[in-house]
Amino acid sequence: MKKEKTSILTVGSVAFDTIQTPSGKAESVLGGSGNYFSIAAAFYCPIEVVGVVGDDFPKSHLTWLSGRGVDVTGIKVVHGKTFHWVGSYDQNLNEAKTLSTALNVFEHFDPKLSEKHRDVPYVFLANIDPVLQNSVLDQMKAPKLVACDSMNFWITGKPAELKSLLRRVDILSVNEGEAYLLTDEKNILKAARKIRKMGPSVVVVKRGEYGAMLVTESGVFIAPSFPVDHVVDPTGAGDSFAGAFMGFLANAGVTREMAEENPEKWDHLLRQAVVAGCVMASFTVEDFSFHRLMKLEHKELAAREKSLLKMLSL
Amino acid sequence: MKKEKTSILTVGSVAFDTIQTPSGKAESVLGGSGNYFSIAAAFYCPIEVVGVVGDDFPKSHLTWLSGRGVDVTGIKVVHGKTFHWVGSYDQNLNEAKTLSTALNVFEHFDPKLSEKHRDVPYVFLANIDPVLQNSVLDQMKAPKLVACDSMNFWITGKPAELKSLLRRVDILSVNEGEAYLLTDEKNILKAARKIRKMGPSVVVVKRGEYGAMLVTESGVFIAPSFPVDHVVDPTGAGDSFAGAFMGFLANAGVTREMAEENPEKWDHLLRQAVVAGCVMASFTVEDFSFHRLMKLEHKELAAREKSLLKMLSL
Repeated sequence: MKKEKTSILTVGSVAFDTIQTPSGKAESVLGGSGNYFSIAAAFYCPIEVVGVVGDDFPKSHLTWLSGRGVDVTGIKVVHGKTFHWVGSYDQNLNEAKTLSTALNVFEHFDPKLSEKHRDVPYVFLANIDPVLQNSVLDQMKAPKLVACDSMNFWITGKPAELKSLLRRVDILSVNEGEAYLLTDEKNILKAARKIRKMGPSVVVVKRGEYGAMLVTESGVFIAPSFPVDHVVDPTGAGDSFAGAFMGFLANAGVTREMAEENPEKWDHLLRQAVVAGCVMASFTVEDFSFHRLMKLEHKELAAREKSLLKMLSL
Repeated sequence: MKKEKTSILTVGSVAFDTIQTPSGKAESVLGGSGNYFSIAAAFYCPIEVVGVVGDDFPKSHLTWLSGRGVDVTGIKVVHGKTFHWVGSYDQNLNEAKTLSTALNVFEHFDPKLSEKHRDVPYVFLANIDPVLQNSVLDQMKAPKLVACDSMNFWITGKPAELKSLLRRVDILSVNEGEAYLLTDEKNILKAARKIRKMGPSVVVVKRGEYGAMLVTESGVFIAPSFPVDHVVDPTGAGDSFAGAFMGFLANAGVTREMAEENPEKWDHLLRQAVVAGCVMASFTVEDFSFHRLMKLEHKELAAREKSLLKMLSL
């Protein structure tokens, strides 16, 4: 069976977050893009996560991840403190304000992949220095589908390195503001088309509470977010979106060859993956950290997906 | 044939607008909610528009409206100047900034309906003083479906009058910020549910470039806006949305009784009407004033609707 071999390699931050939102404050809770991505993706397929934490990081969380099908042997534990992000959101929950970033042990992060990691067919390069994203890709043997994320800091800080990365990836997932910054456009369609010319044949634009837009060779798909009654903390929404999105694609065996071989199927599965991402993100925001995701059940995902599809259909 | 009798009465402003957007400036162009609504709705069914203009208003436009199936006998021409709105938009095209409002002849507008007007089955009360909206409704004989719009100015300025109006209407169409202000909520679902308790069984929340959300007894429908390459001027998007929405419903013979008699059909047609609204608004924003709508053809509406539905479907 092909499916047994499918897994996703992700490289990203494994961190502590201190977050203030209109709903309250969470002090030094677990966070990080690699973490959110892995927990979400693990609902769909096995994950290998590569990252670094300090010796203050709770081993119990790594054990919990393992129990969920996340291979954490790629998370290096080094002497020092774990990456710590401090941020806040005002009433406009679509935008985070960074109050401080203590890179700590993440400052000298230089991902070295094991033989096993290098063989993995699916790759998600979470939002880290594009130099490191490129280095990870250099180490991969023959990835079948590569997606990446980025952010304003790298778009303005390392544009050349980011552009060299984009030429090598199949899918870019960014938020609306990042898409505008990256392309110097103010119109979302124009921005997405410009990104496609930079390399990624698939662009996923995340729009916070308004959902996501998928742009491929054959057209546009627009999925709304699932409207929840109470958004507690939007942190990790984008990374868990990406986790479910990639997890869905990996589980369905979608590779870049499909774009040529069966463009209709490629598009259909990408659209389904976007819906999976929207559904996952809607759970993430219901509580601080991954509190909601850690107790989330498959049947809840399925029920909410059904509801969301109803909200889309005539 | 039942359909021959169907028409919509609308009461709103017929005005001049002076508008600055990132795309340029339009000086004293035709505008006003009654105008935008009528032009859009006339693609679907006959319209009766009630309003007031000064003797500076071009008769040629009234003649053009008549040619489009808009009965303009309810537009009173009085001595003085026509209502003139001056506004601007910055890069965030979702929000207008009012620079000045010269009510002029509109200041003493007191709509008196003719016998013919009082008989019309569909009513759209555009965004005017809720006292006048109530007065119009008092004059109607037996409307089968009543929708209204409002805005921040009336929500804060005449809350009691607006609330008394809401108890009498079937459909409220407002933008997101107005829904929050009206309900003192920050969550769109909660706001929509609260509005439903105020009277309207159908709430349409307009979200600018993100489309619209429909909330009814049976659930939620979320339609994206049709993404256009270049938004020139968002003025009138909401009113032309409402025009196509109501025009679609009137043409399909949807009355409030259908909600009870055939809730599935009611919901399906409301959803289709929202899509019609999104499509119409996407043309409106492509040029200043109604320049785009005045040359719009039915086949263009149909083609764009087809494209939008593709963007919604898996």
